[in-house]
Amino acid sequence: MPDHSIEKIVIIGSGPAGWTAAIYAARANLDPLVIPGRASGKDLVAGGQLMLTTEVENFPGFPKGVLGPELMQLFFNQAMRFSTRVVTDSGVKAGPDLASTGLYTPFPNVQSVDLSKRPFRVVTDSGFECLTHTLVIATGAKANWIGLPNEQRLALSGGGVSACAVCDGALPVFRGQPLGVVGGGDSAIEEATYLTKFASKVYLIHRRDQLRASKIMQERALGNPKIQPCWNKVVVDVLGQDRVSGVRLKDTVTGETSELGLGGLFMAIGHTPITSFLNGQVALTEKGYIKLADPFRATTSVPGVFAAGDVADSTYRQAITAAGMGCKAALDAERYLAELGVH
Amino acid sequence: MPDHSIEKIVIIGSGPAGWTAAIYAARANLDPLVIPGRASGKDLVAGGQLMLTTEVENFPGFPKGVLGPELMQLFFNQAMRFSTRVVTDSGVKAGPDLASTGLYTPFPNVQSVDLSKRPFRVVTDSGFECLTHTLVIATGAKANWIGLPNEQRLALSGGGVSACAVCDGALPVFRGQPLGVVGGGDSAIEEATYLTKFASKVYLIHRRDQLRASKIMQERALGNPKIQPCWNKVVVDVLGQDRVSGVRLKDTVTGETSELGLGGLFMAIGHTPITSFLNGQVALTEKGYIKLADPFRATTSVPGVFAAGDVADSTYRQAITAAGMGCKAALDAERYLAELGVH
Repeated sequence: MPDHSIEKIVIIGSGPAGWTAAIYAARANLDPLVIPGRASGKDLVAGGQLMLTTEVENFPGFPKGVLGPELMQLFFNQAMRFSTRVVTDSGVKAGPDLASTGLYTPFPNVQSVDLSKRPFRVVTDSGFECLTHTLVIATGAKANWIGLPNEQRLALSGGGVSACAVCDGALPVFRGQPLGVVGGGDSAIEEATYLTKFASKVYLIHRRDQLRASKIMQERALGNPKIQPCWNKVVVDVLGQDRVSGVRLKDTVTGETSELGLGGLFMAIGHTPITSFLNGQVALTEKGYIKLADPFRATTSVPGVFAAGDVADSTYRQAITAAGMGCKAALDAERYLAELGVH
Repeated sequence: MPDHSIEKIVIIGSGPAGWTAAIYAARANLDPLVIPGRASGKDLVAGGQLMLTTEVENFPGFPKGVLGPELMQLFFNQAMRFSTRVVTDSGVKAGPDLASTGLYTPFPNVQSVDLSKRPFRVVTDSGFECLTHTLVIATGAKANWIGLPNEQRLALSGGGVSACAVCDGALPVFRGQPLGVVGGGDSAIEEATYLTKFASKVYLIHRRDQLRASKIMQERALGNPKIQPCWNKVVVDVLGQDRVSGVRLKDTVTGETSELGLGGLFMAIGHTPITSFLNGQVALTEKGYIKLADPFRATTSVPGVFAAGDVADSTYRQAITAAGMGCKAALDAERYLAELGVH
């Protein structure tokens, strides 16, 4: 029987980064334990952000595309094949016990970690506790949404509301359509500029009368004939039954409402990396993401703690980049354990 | 008709990094042109190092595993779906024209690039030339082999000879077997240490009577009871018909030959990144890999030139990390082009 009084590696999170770390750790005989995180509204879900998407066309290896939740189930199954153990609401389980419920098993969230002593301690909100030599943080980042019921409905059903222009902008349904981008920062400008490749027009909907983006980004946006700013406007409703047909806007100065016809709506009002459970024990960037000690690797400010995926990436946020980082985190942890002499 | 007098993006190489860059570039409407590289013995092949492997168990998304060449064909097909153009020996072709021959189409190698003027110029050994605003270098690194006929035969047939312990060490056929590692540097020690998780014993076969590895790595290796060094030995033949059964060794001091029974043989005598065609125009690391200007990104010393995959990675060398870098290279190129005002 393997001794689990101290785990070799605990992985928090279950998106592309988490499961890839698990696959690599399991194949390195590290007997990984994963804490997937619970579904809770539009917060973190087991399986990560791809669980909130429909068709994924850009994950390499799937020339016909694959549904986001289906892709994550494949990741999960692969981790199970290599005997990854998973913390569920009813205790630690492995492959065969999870086959029928898969990613929809009730999983706990991490409540707290204590990185001040070694081995590290990890506590979940289901009351499970464990000690571990290494920790991989792959909790992701949550896209910020306005929070309107119709926005959520059309985002979850693949009805043309998205928080990722790079992921979804190239889909045929958006070609030649007027599209809306909500936001006023650098990433809103990047998304709007990206979407001009496909759209007939891109409306940049911003609650103020100037952009928060850097000057050079502003000039680029306002100089692009396809981008039209809608100043002092907030989206108060998203229109359309099966697909988005437009938005209802409210003017933040006059209070007047108006409607704008759109073939797609892209949120670019930021992301919130999931780091609060760390309680300041790992260094973060100015934007609140985990700061990588060596940006090529998955190392953090705490030796033995590794980060992978969107929680440490404010730049790319793609499933394939997250998976690559998950692999790095597991291999970094393996080398760290070899240095510690833990076999 | 799109204007191809100046390409937006040219991608050199056709492993996981190259095709992922193509998929992302194509979806960003950059109309990418790929120069895959030619098969030539154990050198670079179209499709990259995975074309020389059999079962791949650790690429996430494939819970049942996938054959290396099959996985690369899927990458290729996905790039074709999004209208990637490819330079073949008989000119530039796209999807339908390549469907029947796929990765086994005759492709040229890059002969030279001129990065001193913009746009950059790229010339292949088939006589094809083009100009491009951005360049992605994804030419990979070739594992070094001893060069023995039986070594090559058993490597290509999946007969238990490998150049990647992380990739192949966990395969069931190697469990509980005596394994050989050829080499004396840090990576040989890492591979040997990694293999002790699975092997009954690991023989470290080195041509000298001391290791080139760092002191701490040497202590770790020589202190591990499962690792036994074979000093002053070179492999002069690999034994076994369908699977490796051992090696014939020659003593570099006495000249005596002996046989050693093995259930697997791992080469760890370095890699050679494919950079000679760059002719010193892009900064390299001490080891000869492309130096990333920002190690989190795919930027190089030359603005507009990006690097992805093993050609810029002496640490991880996995298909999934290479694919992640390919995505980064395409998105970096896309942003660079947006800054240039190229649409």
